[in-house]
Amino acid sequence: MAIDRTATPLIDAPRGLAGVVVAETEIGDVRGREGFYHYRQYSAVDLARTRSFEDVWHLLVHGTLPDARRAAAFAAETAALRRLPEEVREALPAIAGAGRLSGPLAGLRTALSLLGAARGFRPVYDIDAGRRRVDTVAACAAVPTLLAALYRLGRGLEPVEPREDLPYAANYLYMVTGSEPDPQRARAVEQYMISTIDHGFNASTFTARVIASTGADVTACLTGAVGALSGPLHGGAPSRALDTLDAIGTPDRIDPWIRERVLAGDRIMGFGHAVYRTEDPRSRMLREIALGFGGPRVHFAVEVERRVEAILAELKPGRELHTNVEFYAGVVMELCGLPREMFTPTFAAARVVGWSANILEQAADPKIIRPVARYVGPQPQAAVPSAG
Amino acid sequence: MAIDRTATPLIDAPRGLAGVVVAETEIGDVRGREGFYHYRQYSAVDLARTRSFEDVWHLLVHGTLPDARRAAAFAAETAALRRLPEEVREALPAIAGAGRLSGPLAGLRTALSLLGAARGFRPVYDIDAGRRRVDTVAACAAVPTLLAALYRLGRGLEPVEPREDLPYAANYLYMVTGSEPDPQRARAVEQYMISTIDHGFNASTFTARVIASTGADVTACLTGAVGALSGPLHGGAPSRALDTLDAIGTPDRIDPWIRERVLAGDRIMGFGHAVYRTEDPRSRMLREIALGFGGPRVHFAVEVERRVEAILAELKPGRELHTNVEFYAGVVMELCGLPREMFTPTFAAARVVGWSANILEQAADPKIIRPVARYVGPQPQAAVPSAG
Repeated sequence: MAIDRTATPLIDAPRGLAGVVVAETEIGDVRGREGFYHYRQYSAVDLARTRSFEDVWHLLVHGTLPDARRAAAFAAETAALRRLPEEVREALPAIAGAGRLSGPLAGLRTALSLLGAARGFRPVYDIDAGRRRVDTVAACAAVPTLLAALYRLGRGLEPVEPREDLPYAANYLYMVTGSEPDPQRARAVEQYMISTIDHGFNASTFTARVIASTGADVTACLTGAVGALSGPLHGGAPSRALDTLDAIGTPDRIDPWIRERVLAGDRIMGFGHAVYRTEDPRSRMLREIALGFGGPRVHFAVEVERRVEAILAELKPGRELHTNVEFYAGVVMELCGLPREMFTPTFAAARVVGWSANILEQAADPKIIRPVARYVGPQPQAAVPSAG
Repeated sequence: MAIDRTATPLIDAPRGLAGVVVAETEIGDVRGREGFYHYRQYSAVDLARTRSFEDVWHLLVHGTLPDARRAAAFAAETAALRRLPEEVREALPAIAGAGRLSGPLAGLRTALSLLGAARGFRPVYDIDAGRRRVDTVAACAAVPTLLAALYRLGRGLEPVEPREDLPYAANYLYMVTGSEPDPQRARAVEQYMISTIDHGFNASTFTARVIASTGADVTACLTGAVGALSGPLHGGAPSRALDTLDAIGTPDRIDPWIRERVLAGDRIMGFGHAVYRTEDPRSRMLREIALGFGGPRVHFAVEVERRVEAILAELKPGRELHTNVEFYAGVVMELCGLPREMFTPTFAAARVVGWSANILEQAADPKIIRPVARYVGPQPQAAVPSAG
């Protein structure tokens, strides 16, 4: 329950545990200086360029890329789990109603928690590795259905039933918009989602692992991760980059707008990353995808990117600043017909696979994660004053 | 999002971050060798003996014990927040239905998540300290109502509406059982709940703080904490101690049953604690409370405790083993008419106040908690094999 100071020497760690190794992982890594990140032994961007979401999902939770037969079996397994249990469908209108105030991640948090209960998920330490994997797959497969249904219910629309014949991302787009997406849009969202499954250790992934370390069930872990993702310091709000484009408005306003921001020392949303010293590899891929669509919006975005880099080079020489994943992710999702409020939920619908891989890895090594706090308040000595 | 290894030197920490200081706290501490724990500068057991649950709640979230006028105001404030928003009431039957498989903590997790959305809770970093406190109070005040309603719905009974004229613990007992508890039972449960509000750093408290460190809303944090509490490694299952009493059955079977377990090296549920080298101070208080009720069940429990200690002293000399909080907590809750499946939920209904104090403390120091993982898988070099 707590730590006996007399037994365990305390270790002073940097604030926020920065740089403290809490786990060994075989899931993936980010190499900031090289502008490279990977899932298992494969470049994540190469995976996004060449494979399906389901294939990469299989890679993360089974550890290997599937051959054709296993890929088809896994796709069928996941597609069959898209439909929601009756108790969950029944509660969705109330969850959507409450979500009007707190947004789609709060709705997903509630609905995922309910889904796990309805599916009878058991503590990860009480089940074997195969059963754990099935639980994570069932949870992930339902996330697009939950998100799309909550979105539509929030607008007074009927939810659209999932289709088993569409791939993960295409079916998600279909359920949100109500019509089957063209192949270019379906693939663009799929590639974005593959590139977003995992990205090193972050606060939501860590949350999932802390909860998994107690042995709690898969949705207990995922619910906590969704909660952490909803925090403003977690980052990842692709809609903010579009807000930048909207704030600039027209090509002639690009230069004065950027100069004003840079000189005021303001942050420009969609630019800058804590890890990458080079261009964000996700950004490069998403720019190409956007250029494949073309059109004035894309060219405006490219021009904004070009001018931000040029003006920064002029006003703050030596300080390299590139677009981050949010910038073109927002542009691509807009091109594909996703409403802005669904940008972060779309991120969550991909990241849930990464969280799952982390939960499975953590559960395979049953040791609770439990650091300590140092008491720095007044020493207890006072008798308790009697009540009023 | 992730850590650049090139920028941050990695620190190898003990497995599970044991002994790693992640926060400074003024909430309380546990002194294992002294058999003592405290909330702020007061002995927790003294608080349980002399004050109301609401007074100690005020101490934890406001930092001071209230005088008579403030105590009355805080009690009225919390009592007024016991009723549930309409969206939450509406969804409870579906949540209770799903809970048949996954138990009451999964139900609480879902219902708390929904409550926060329905109340429109905003990220803790977007609101001031006063508003954060109000959010935690609203969440805590609703927990007994949620738990009791889910319990009754799960049995096909109508939920009992909360009463504002009863104290926190008495109202909880009333809503679970459907009848107003006598003062001795109400006070016994209140004292147990006060003694359970906090107990040093533990996995659920840490989870709440990790989520709070992203700036997420109060229920995002509490939902994660409930998830962590549901994990088998978190500990705290007072019903297991009663299972020990039931397994022994009758006084004449005490000695052979205990000898068999001790010689087999089995753990005896309700005995032993990771921190206390002395008697658990909670155990001592709860034994007194149980003896205040008297009766054969209590005397049987006392006899089991006495014989376990004697037989251990004989068979494993030098190894001190005392009852932990679970042992007499189970006895007391049973005496007060709480069903066993509500023992851990009752613990949660108290601990939620401790989580809240930790969330408030964490939110006052906005720095994300984000350790790192070390990649130990195969180095990425392979080209991605083409699909199928």
